[in-house]
Amino acid sequence: MKFPVLYLRKGAERRIKAGHLWVYSNEVDARRSPLSGFEPGDQAELRSASDRPLGTLFVNPHALICGRLISRDPEHGMTPQRLTQRMEVALALREKLFDQPYYRWVFGDSDGLSGLVVDRFGDSVVIQISTAGMEQLRDAIVRAVQRLAHPKSIVLKNDGKMRSVEGLPSYIEQVEGVAAETLTVIENGVRFEVPLSGGQKTGWFYDHRMNRQRLQCYAPGKRVLDVFSYVGGWGVQAASAGAAQVTCIDSSSLAIDAVHHNASINGLDNVDTIEGDAFDALKALAAEKERFDVVVLDPPALIPRRRDQKAGEQAYARLNQLGLRLLAKDGVLVSASCSMHLSQERLVDIIRSSGRKIDRFVQLLEQGHQAPDHPVIPGIPETDYIKSCFVRSLTGFF
Amino acid sequence: MKFPVLYLRKGAERRIKAGHLWVYSNEVDARRSPLSGFEPGDQAELRSASDRPLGTLFVNPHALICGRLISRDPEHGMTPQRLTQRMEVALALREKLFDQPYYRWVFGDSDGLSGLVVDRFGDSVVIQISTAGMEQLRDAIVRAVQRLAHPKSIVLKNDGKMRSVEGLPSYIEQVEGVAAETLTVIENGVRFEVPLSGGQKTGWFYDHRMNRQRLQCYAPGKRVLDVFSYVGGWGVQAASAGAAQVTCIDSSSLAIDAVHHNASINGLDNVDTIEGDAFDALKALAAEKERFDVVVLDPPALIPRRRDQKAGEQAYARLNQLGLRLLAKDGVLVSASCSMHLSQERLVDIIRSSGRKIDRFVQLLEQGHQAPDHPVIPGIPETDYIKSCFVRSLTGFF
Repeated sequence: MKFPVLYLRKGAERRIKAGHLWVYSNEVDARRSPLSGFEPGDQAELRSASDRPLGTLFVNPHALICGRLISRDPEHGMTPQRLTQRMEVALALREKLFDQPYYRWVFGDSDGLSGLVVDRFGDSVVIQISTAGMEQLRDAIVRAVQRLAHPKSIVLKNDGKMRSVEGLPSYIEQVEGVAAETLTVIENGVRFEVPLSGGQKTGWFYDHRMNRQRLQCYAPGKRVLDVFSYVGGWGVQAASAGAAQVTCIDSSSLAIDAVHHNASINGLDNVDTIEGDAFDALKALAAEKERFDVVVLDPPALIPRRRDQKAGEQAYARLNQLGLRLLAKDGVLVSASCSMHLSQERLVDIIRSSGRKIDRFVQLLEQGHQAPDHPVIPGIPETDYIKSCFVRSLTGFF
Repeated sequence: MKFPVLYLRKGAERRIKAGHLWVYSNEVDARRSPLSGFEPGDQAELRSASDRPLGTLFVNPHALICGRLISRDPEHGMTPQRLTQRMEVALALREKLFDQPYYRWVFGDSDGLSGLVVDRFGDSVVIQISTAGMEQLRDAIVRAVQRLAHPKSIVLKNDGKMRSVEGLPSYIEQVEGVAAETLTVIENGVRFEVPLSGGQKTGWFYDHRMNRQRLQCYAPGKRVLDVFSYVGGWGVQAASAGAAQVTCIDSSSLAIDAVHHNASINGLDNVDTIEGDAFDALKALAAEKERFDVVVLDPPALIPRRRDQKAGEQAYARLNQLGLRLLAKDGVLVSASCSMHLSQERLVDIIRSSGRKIDRFVQLLEQGHQAPDHPVIPGIPETDYIKSCFVRSLTGFF
C-alpha cells in the first residue's frame, strides 16, 4: 500500500530507531510535510530527513504526540487483519501465563497497538480507545474481540482523558450483551465485584496482580492496613490469605461500599474501613498509637506531570514516613507507586531517607513491577510505571 | 561498655548517616585516631569530626573497608548475645517466608552482621566468615547456629577471597557432624545435590530462587536453553516444570556431571548438556540454526570491578544478542546479572539495543530481583546485585 509521507527533522529519527514508537509534533519537518495536510487518524509513511524509511504510523495533526508507529515496515499499514493478528499474539501470551480470563489483553504500544487497551473480566470485555487512528478501526476491534474471545458482554469505555486531546467524543457504549452495573474479577484466587460506571479506568487495576500475590505471603496472622484501598484489591486479598485483621482506607464512599461487599462475598468478616483522606487518616491512627504488622501504600500517581516532580516526591516521602511510623516493631511496609515519573531508584531512596529520619533499620525484601499483561517496551519509558517495594522495618534492632 | 574512639574526617559521616555501614580508610582522621592503634577485629566507637557519636564498629586497620558498623548506638558493641539476637531476627523472616529450611539465613550487612553469611541446607548449615571482627566471634556464631537451628552438620567454609584482605587464613572446617561431599537443596519443589568442595561459594545460589520460580511458568512444553547452567538450577527446574527439552551449557565438567545427576534424581530424561565456553557454544548453536523457545542467560559477574564497566557491558551486549538470535519466532529470553556494577536500568537498555540491532520486537514481561533471604539495604548499593529480565522476543511482528 502507498501512504503519504511524514518527514522528520534532521536527527529526530534517533528516538524512533532506539525503540520508541511516538513522534512529537515539533519533530516533524513541517515545511516538507505540513501536518495540516493530514486528517486525524490518517495512516502515513514515516521518513527521516535523509529520506530513510522508518515505517508507518497513525497521524493526528492536532495532538502533541502527532504520530504513533504502526510498523517498522513501510509497506505495512494497520488493517483489520493486522489488528486481529496482533490481538492474537497478545492473547497467546496472556493465555499462557494466566489460568483464567482475567487480565489486560491489550496494553497499547506494548502490544503494538498504540491507543488501544482491552481488559478481560471473564465473559466480559472492556475496550478503551484513546486515539483517532484506533477509533477508525473501532468496528474491526469489536469483531476481533468477538472472534478471538466470544465474550457475552463487550463495552466500549471510551471516556478517557486522552480522547479530548485527540478530538474524540467521550462515551460508554454496550456493543454486545446487556449492560451490567458490576464486573467480576478473580485475582490470585480471590473474587471481586467492581462498579463499572463511577469506578476508575476500566474498573480494575490488573497491573499490581503479582505484587498483591506476594502480599499474601506476608499477611497470615497479621494486622494489615490498606491505604488508598479502592475496592480492596490488596486488603481483601490479605484477609483471604489469613490476615488477623484488615483496615482499608479510601476517600470514596463507593469504594468503601465495594470493600465491604468484596469482603462479604469472600466470607470474610475481619475487614474494617475508614472513609476519608489517607494522610489525615494515617495521622489520626498514629495519634491513637495504633500499630499494624503490614502497611500497604498504593496511592494514585502523586507525580501526575513532570513539573510536579518535587512536590510529588515530597508527598511520597510524607506518606512513606507515616506508613513506617504505623508499623509494629518488626513490620512490613508495602510501598507502591504508579507514577511514571517516579523511578524505582527514587522510590527506594525515599524509603531509605524515611527510614533514616525515624531511625528504623529497613531491609528491602522484594521489588515488584507491573504484571506481565502490562509489558514494558524498553525503548518507551512511558510504558514502565508500576513499582512496589516490600520493606521490613525493624525498631531498636541496629 | 567503653570503646576506643575512631574519628572521621570532616564530612565523612554523610554516607553513614544516609544509611551505609562501611568506613573507608581514607575517611578516618588518622591524626586524631591513627589506625595503627587498632588490631584487626577490634571494636570501637565511631565519631564525626565534630565529636558526634555515630555508633560502634569493627575495625581492621589493614583493610580498605577499615570499619563496619555494629550499631548506631555508641553503647552497643557486638556480644555473643547481640549476635544471637540478630541471627534470631534474621531467622524469623526466613521461617515466615519459606516452607522448608533451604535459604540464606544471614546475609551480612543486610542482617546487621557485616562479614557473616550463613546458608541452610536442610540439616546442614554452611557458615562463611569474611572479616576479622566476625572471626573473633567464631565460636559464638557456631553456638548460635546450634542453639537456633540444631543442625546435624555445620561447616565453616572460610575460604572466600575477602579473607586474605582481612589477614585471615583460608580453611574449611567441619565443626559439627560428619563431612559430606554433597549438600542437598530443595528449591521451588525441585531437589538438587551440589558438590560442597570444588563448588562455587557456599555451594548454591539461593539469590535467584524467585526468578527460577517464575521460569517455571514459561517452561511447559518448551525447548529451553540454560547458559552458564552450573549444576542446573534453572534448567532442571524448567524440565521439572514440564519443558519439552532442556540443554544446559557450562564450562565445568564437575557442573555438567551435577546437571546430569540432578536431572536423574528428579526422574527427568530430557536434559542434555554441552560442556564448553558459553560464547563459543552459543555461536555454534546459531551456526547450526538451532532454535529455542526459552533461553536463560545467567553469567558470572561480567563486570567484576568498576574499571571493567565498559568491557563488561559489551560482554553482556554480545551475550544478549547471541541469546536473542537463538530464540524461536515467539520466544522468551531470561537475562540475568549478578554484577553489582550493572544496574537494572543498564541491563534493560542492553536488551533494548540488542533487540533493535537484530530487529526484534521485545516486550519486557517481568523484572526480577534477589530473593527476600538476600535483603537489600537501601543505603548500601553493594547489597543490591541480582537482576533478571523476562523478555518476550517477537520476529516479524512489528
